[in-house]
Amino acid sequence: MEYTKNFNIRTGRNLTMLVDFYELTMGNGYLHSDMGERIAYFDMFFRRVPDGGGYCIMAGVQQVIEYLSNLKFSEDDIEYLRNKNSFSEEFLNYLKNFKFSCDVWAIPEGNPVFPNEPLVTVKGPAIQAQFVETMILLTINHQTLIATKANRICRAAGNRPVMEFGSRRAQGYDGAIYGARAAVIGGCSSTACTISEEMFGIPAVGTMAHSWIQLFPTEYEAFKAWADVYPDNCVLLIDTYNVLKSGLPNAIKVFNEILLPKGFRPKGIRIDSGDITYLTKKCREILDESGFSDVQIVISNSLDEFIISDVLSQGACIDSLGVGERLITARSEPVFGGVYKLSAIEDPVGNIVPKIKISENEEKITNPGFKNIYRIYDKKDNKAIADLITLRDEELNLNEPIEIFDPVFTWKKKKIKDYYIKELMVKIFDKGIPVYENPSVMDIKKVVEEETSKMWPEVLRFENPHTYYVDLSKKLWDLKQDLLHKYSNTYEEE
Amino acid sequence: MEYTKNFNIRTGRNLTMLVDFYELTMGNGYLHSDMGERIAYFDMFFRRVPDGGGYCIMAGVQQVIEYLSNLKFSEDDIEYLRNKNSFSEEFLNYLKNFKFSCDVWAIPEGNPVFPNEPLVTVKGPAIQAQFVETMILLTINHQTLIATKANRICRAAGNRPVMEFGSRRAQGYDGAIYGARAAVIGGCSSTACTISEEMFGIPAVGTMAHSWIQLFPTEYEAFKAWADVYPDNCVLLIDTYNVLKSGLPNAIKVFNEILLPKGFRPKGIRIDSGDITYLTKKCREILDESGFSDVQIVISNSLDEFIISDVLSQGACIDSLGVGERLITARSEPVFGGVYKLSAIEDPVGNIVPKIKISENEEKITNPGFKNIYRIYDKKDNKAIADLITLRDEELNLNEPIEIFDPVFTWKKKKIKDYYIKELMVKIFDKGIPVYENPSVMDIKKVVEEETSKMWPEVLRFENPHTYYVDLSKKLWDLKQDLLHKYSNTYEEE
Repeated sequence: MEYTKNFNIRTGRNLTMLVDFYELTMGNGYLHSDMGERIAYFDMFFRRVPDGGGYCIMAGVQQVIEYLSNLKFSEDDIEYLRNKNSFSEEFLNYLKNFKFSCDVWAIPEGNPVFPNEPLVTVKGPAIQAQFVETMILLTINHQTLIATKANRICRAAGNRPVMEFGSRRAQGYDGAIYGARAAVIGGCSSTACTISEEMFGIPAVGTMAHSWIQLFPTEYEAFKAWADVYPDNCVLLIDTYNVLKSGLPNAIKVFNEILLPKGFRPKGIRIDSGDITYLTKKCREILDESGFSDVQIVISNSLDEFIISDVLSQGACIDSLGVGERLITARSEPVFGGVYKLSAIEDPVGNIVPKIKISENEEKITNPGFKNIYRIYDKKDNKAIADLITLRDEELNLNEPIEIFDPVFTWKKKKIKDYYIKELMVKIFDKGIPVYENPSVMDIKKVVEEETSKMWPEVLRFENPHTYYVDLSKKLWDLKQDLLHKYSNTYEEE
Repeated sequence: MEYTKNFNIRTGRNLTMLVDFYELTMGNGYLHSDMGERIAYFDMFFRRVPDGGGYCIMAGVQQVIEYLSNLKFSEDDIEYLRNKNSFSEEFLNYLKNFKFSCDVWAIPEGNPVFPNEPLVTVKGPAIQAQFVETMILLTINHQTLIATKANRICRAAGNRPVMEFGSRRAQGYDGAIYGARAAVIGGCSSTACTISEEMFGIPAVGTMAHSWIQLFPTEYEAFKAWADVYPDNCVLLIDTYNVLKSGLPNAIKVFNEILLPKGFRPKGIRIDSGDITYLTKKCREILDESGFSDVQIVISNSLDEFIISDVLSQGACIDSLGVGERLITARSEPVFGGVYKLSAIEDPVGNIVPKIKISENEEKITNPGFKNIYRIYDKKDNKAIADLITLRDEELNLNEPIEIFDPVFTWKKKKIKDYYIKELMVKIFDKGIPVYENPSVMDIKKVVEEETSKMWPEVLRFENPHTYYVDLSKKLWDLKQDLLHKYSNTYEEE
């Protein structure tokens, strides 16, 4: 059991072998081409915000750190790989003694992030920096997808609490567990996923399903039994038979007969089907008339940001919402297309040689070199103006105005005065040693609230958001142009 | 470490606490309403085939069995639950000594399954049968979704091998790990997900990424290095710079200079971008002219069943395919809407009381009672004619023709002679003891091939497939009508 030492029973398995097989065939190849120890630089970034949104919410860094801290091949893994007949004993020996020694930088969780800026940068021996591709992508892609979707849904819900309810429709166990984590980062107040509270300290909540009602001879008896057991937290699901003719009258009867005499106020009713606008308005009216204006109306049933905006604009009376499958799978756009691309290598004497991936598709051309990112804020209102990607060794002169320019239409320039900057990436591994202290999920959630409040409303809106500026420094832009021209001289159009 | 005994380092964590919180609040409620030990019957089923398809592929039973075999609450879990202040000590004690004692039936993996038939049935004490809802749904929903999507993609690909490549875009680690399992069940020949081969014995494959090419000074040197290391399995990725002007000529040069002199035949080229039809036709032509008609063309890049059908109909020259994000997330429809509904309870003396969930939406009305399912095959050609859902205690007289009828338009009848039947569900737990031996994934894959070959082509097609008959026995139909009429007398339309 060589895993045991670093193995946390709750946070999961050792996932070292969760790797695309080609990372291994390439690793073996690098080793035998004397490239294994060459220092390579990789950037993880994405090209497009899902759902046509204005920004994404960074999430998953803690799990990347856990993964990178626990890289270890077992004897069984080595034996399995040996039997594939693709790898030399020298390479298998390398894996057996694998010791992660890369430097890694990442944008901390909860920050709004934008296309084409590095979210994670890995610098280290080519075998290693290549190997970690699959899990870095998988982790950040998944959690950023869900945090971003949750943020949309919570914005649509206004100040109403949104509960994450989707475990049963998640794509696998981790889809539920880490999906709940990301959903709370993005803005959800709580989750139905119990294990996620144990693991991450995010509140788990829940009351009853239709089966509770059905198991009793009548709805009234089911409500009565519930009120007896949970007088202090009584939320009744009222749509098993008929909301207005049966569920609500029975609920009110039980509130009056059981709760009030015992000195408890009822907490709420939940509706999980039917016409939300009509039913919630009617229920609100009847509850208010019956002396229960403090009783909350909770809704669920295939909600997402579009339906929530719609029913609220129709005047639906909603106090809180449960959102399930459309959040936990990001149903409207379930793929977050983060990529992991080589940006530089060091030559044998340690000089950085920037690399570019060219493409007919201009969008797919990468930003070369070892880079840094600064977020530039306006001093007078703290709003974020732009992100500026520079080369690592550039120094910004903060006493002078910064001139940014559009990387395509370079005559579109903007001179920024009275600004302050924040370096976006933090170092999370130094020569293989974790050096970053993960904040709690509830603290990351606060970062989201704080940092999105610094975004212009034009960037935050759902429809046709303003494209936030992500610009390159002059030095980086020049380098990129040089490389592009170099390649265009070598290769012609298809 | 009380988990250790039943804990498999590779198949995962103890997932007992992966449960919707309301299963616990209901459990506590059942206990205190004297309903905890009442025998309840729950069915898991779905209502609609994703993507408008004709059938789904059942998957995930092995993981349901692993989960149910390992139900166990740790001291930490109990302490965590105690701190929620929602549960009595009596209930916490019940959980501490939790011993799964239900009977469970399921349709074995690999079988085509249809809307409204039970995929899983659980019979047991209400607390337990309720508790397992979340994980049964999560497991079957996920794997059935991916197996079904993979089956569509592989049908579109004809006899060409399809490799599952999606780990990096999966929704969480299990999305990748079990998604690969389900993809191979559905028809994929292999996966890029290494750990899935270790866990399930499904072949893991892979060659090189663009970064391999970029790390070398030139594409030619990168290809040459690869051919040196992997002369016997040389598949070159030729689209890093320009497929026809650079990638293919460099590949052919390396084939001729390195592989042939050493006595090796090259295996293939891979194209991951650009116009698939145009490029594969051109590459095929050039490869054939160059004496490499045995070299295979592998394609990837955001493929799904629609794109594959399209490029093949245009005459694209493709030998095998890598399919990633659109398979591993079932992007076209990423939610499999399986539900878990109460179908009966036993009264205190053990009589079965059937239960129905009514709904304004006719589709959402459930089938009551403790049931069984038979698949009826035509004796002359072995084609499946219909599934018949009966009550458990009904006996079919196999010496007589079976009359089936449409459950809505009951005058639509069909008398079936010369048939044979298969009972679809098998018992997987007997009083909490696992009693089913899981086949290997590769054997489940064969079930898919065999059983889909027994489906009419009209059911298999993509566009407007014929709706396969899933009918109710007369006795079950009568029971359902009785319950519906009983409710319609009690409750009026909203």
